[in-house]
Amino acid sequence: MEKTNIAIVGLGTVGTGVAKLLLDHGDRTSRHAGRTLWLKKAVVRDLAKHRDVDLPAGVATDSLEDVINDPEISVVAQLIGGLEPARSIMLRLLESGKDIVTANKALLAEHGPELFTRARELGRSIAFEASVAGGIPIIANVSQCLSANQIRSLEGILNGTSNFIVTQMDEKGAPYDVVVRKAQELGYAEADPTMDVDGTDAAQKLAILAHLAFGATVDWSDIPRMGIDGLDPDDLRYSRQLGYRIKLLALANLADDGLELSVAPTLVRIGTPLAEVRDAFNAIRVVGDAVGPVFYHGLGAGQMPTASAVVADLIDTAVGRTRLTFQTLEYFSIDNPPRAKLRDADTLVGRNYFRLSVANHPGTLASITSVLAKHKISIASVMQHEGENGSTHLDPVPLVIMTHEATEGAARAATQEIESLDSITGPVVRLRVKD
Amino acid sequence: MEKTNIAIVGLGTVGTGVAKLLLDHGDRTSRHAGRTLWLKKAVVRDLAKHRDVDLPAGVATDSLEDVINDPEISVVAQLIGGLEPARSIMLRLLESGKDIVTANKALLAEHGPELFTRARELGRSIAFEASVAGGIPIIANVSQCLSANQIRSLEGILNGTSNFIVTQMDEKGAPYDVVVRKAQELGYAEADPTMDVDGTDAAQKLAILAHLAFGATVDWSDIPRMGIDGLDPDDLRYSRQLGYRIKLLALANLADDGLELSVAPTLVRIGTPLAEVRDAFNAIRVVGDAVGPVFYHGLGAGQMPTASAVVADLIDTAVGRTRLTFQTLEYFSIDNPPRAKLRDADTLVGRNYFRLSVANHPGTLASITSVLAKHKISIASVMQHEGENGSTHLDPVPLVIMTHEATEGAARAATQEIESLDSITGPVVRLRVKD
Repeated sequence: MEKTNIAIVGLGTVGTGVAKLLLDHGDRTSRHAGRTLWLKKAVVRDLAKHRDVDLPAGVATDSLEDVINDPEISVVAQLIGGLEPARSIMLRLLESGKDIVTANKALLAEHGPELFTRARELGRSIAFEASVAGGIPIIANVSQCLSANQIRSLEGILNGTSNFIVTQMDEKGAPYDVVVRKAQELGYAEADPTMDVDGTDAAQKLAILAHLAFGATVDWSDIPRMGIDGLDPDDLRYSRQLGYRIKLLALANLADDGLELSVAPTLVRIGTPLAEVRDAFNAIRVVGDAVGPVFYHGLGAGQMPTASAVVADLIDTAVGRTRLTFQTLEYFSIDNPPRAKLRDADTLVGRNYFRLSVANHPGTLASITSVLAKHKISIASVMQHEGENGSTHLDPVPLVIMTHEATEGAARAATQEIESLDSITGPVVRLRVKD
Repeated sequence: MEKTNIAIVGLGTVGTGVAKLLLDHGDRTSRHAGRTLWLKKAVVRDLAKHRDVDLPAGVATDSLEDVINDPEISVVAQLIGGLEPARSIMLRLLESGKDIVTANKALLAEHGPELFTRARELGRSIAFEASVAGGIPIIANVSQCLSANQIRSLEGILNGTSNFIVTQMDEKGAPYDVVVRKAQELGYAEADPTMDVDGTDAAQKLAILAHLAFGATVDWSDIPRMGIDGLDPDDLRYSRQLGYRIKLLALANLADDGLELSVAPTLVRIGTPLAEVRDAFNAIRVVGDAVGPVFYHGLGAGQMPTASAVVADLIDTAVGRTRLTFQTLEYFSIDNPPRAKLRDADTLVGRNYFRLSVANHPGTLASITSVLAKHKISIASVMQHEGENGSTHLDPVPLVIMTHEATEGAARAATQEIESLDSITGPVVRLRVKD
């Protein structure tokens, strides 16, 4: 049986999982690849460190040169996170004739055009299934399995950390800070979870998916985004009473006048598949013009789900499938970037959830609803509870308003105007609603 | 740009959809394939018949020879249903050097080994994404995207017709016959829906998926199966009261002592993803040892979802991806068939739903529960309603019993014994329960 020599660069959590699959389950990779995938080298920073995988003698090395200078190694799983030295290492590997498999979505989001263009110049390929939604093979599904379609829309829960936090806040009624600490203890959140909870990670993944689905080159930092870091448990509770759950939803919609892209906490109706995605799971709903809606649900991250995606890419690359379309598909091209025309945010139409803190005196509701009426925003439902035990009728009370569809521009203008009313005692919370 | 000449054989519903995608959306197929997919011929039975697609002059022909004898045509979408002449036509196309894309699952289930072996001998390929769950790319997902995994289990709603019928019976409380007529009017059921409603179609699809997932060669007719054609609306109602919906579930489970395969109406807990699959949708839950659970949901059939799968296969075949693994994967081999060892049905363990029609006199429940106890089947819940208005206390009443886990052998033996009790006035309904 033919043999493809593989190297892993970076033996962290995912790298260790990849090594396990290659070493312990060579039979299945050979069966699916029709050839042996042979782990020849694994580049680590510290050779002395204990690892969860038994590498055969001679495999571990702390020198990248052992891979660069070995012409027998043709495919490299490059599993170093962050931008540098990951970028420089990937360029050197490409230049030494290696095909690359990577899970580094931040690197692709920042330097995709440079890296992919260089790979094409050198006749090499980069596979990146593991970069988005680890356990869901969404890259292959969007770019190959649904290739007969014009994708119309994509909606996804793409950040497992955020979804874990929101699920726990929702189900346990616990405040944000407490849940984040729990997520860190369980390994679902990093020591510094900023990129996960502020929407950056989801926006980077959405930029990659939008590129595959719409051929649009999008700078992730251009995507309007809001994280879950400011989420109040009260809003989760009121949403539930109204029949919704709040999810950090990444959304892409193709319209005649351009592409709508956003990442934001969104009210999703209970009982719909996206609303029922719990904890560290991810899910994506894709609508294609021929296939209709297709829904995917799986683990968003973790050692073995991500390793599963990396090894599938290693097989595809070793077999030669990746190479067949890498040149023609021109992913992340800098030569001829079909820049996405993002739709003017103000013209987007959607429903809104408002939570206001209002003084409890006559005329308050009338003044608020007048502002909404002036901006042509009609009200779907209103919920105002009595003050809590021990509060007086003079204490401010929460007022929740769900609107029918309105433009984003009107909703924003109304929010500003409402915030300036005398009877409003705090900032207005406004969230997107998706039916 | 390079060009691949395509032919369609059989311009029925799906064939027409494929022609539309190729003719109206050549831009997207070229973008994804890096080459033009050119529809050169479409073989029809009756040239005079009106069709929903405008074929360019010279494309339609009623002679298969126009395809066989045209060396420029390299890929053929063979979209004729049934076994013959579909089988002979496929063999002739392979022998004339064409790669094949097909949606004909019955043909693969019956003649897969012969056709695939012949294709390999001839250096040709057969792609068949459209043969299972039209709108869900489950073939590519199981055989490629999840190729790093040992699949542990597969559970699926694979027959859209049955699911439509069961959903309508459940939601409208309508009897089987009425719903079947409605399904026929809406085009969800054929004039003779036998193969769909008796479990044959789902078993054929399960045999194909089991082959891909477990490398097991299974004769679909060896799969224990029960259809929905005998389903009583009462059982749907009682199940719902107990927190379950009934779905025609195809199930494959890998255990140490062999493979469990079955197709049967099954109680699925409300709120779980499979229970919420409505109408003509399909869904599949796959568990891999690395990736964990992955859930897919999409349209099971229909013109454009199936055409989407066919065109994705045409692209993969034209690009050369299909060919790369077709020889090595040895799907449906007759030379060395790794025959599946099906587990002894009697040893399978599961929960059961029993509905009995019992005479309303003292000792009845005691005699039934004694039989269950004798067979070591413990009871999870019992539901006995009073007789309907107008019935006397002598009329038989329905008794529903949900059990804890028991072996199939014990459940079957207990069923026989209960049926022979004097107090039982009709056949015992027994259904599988899946938590």
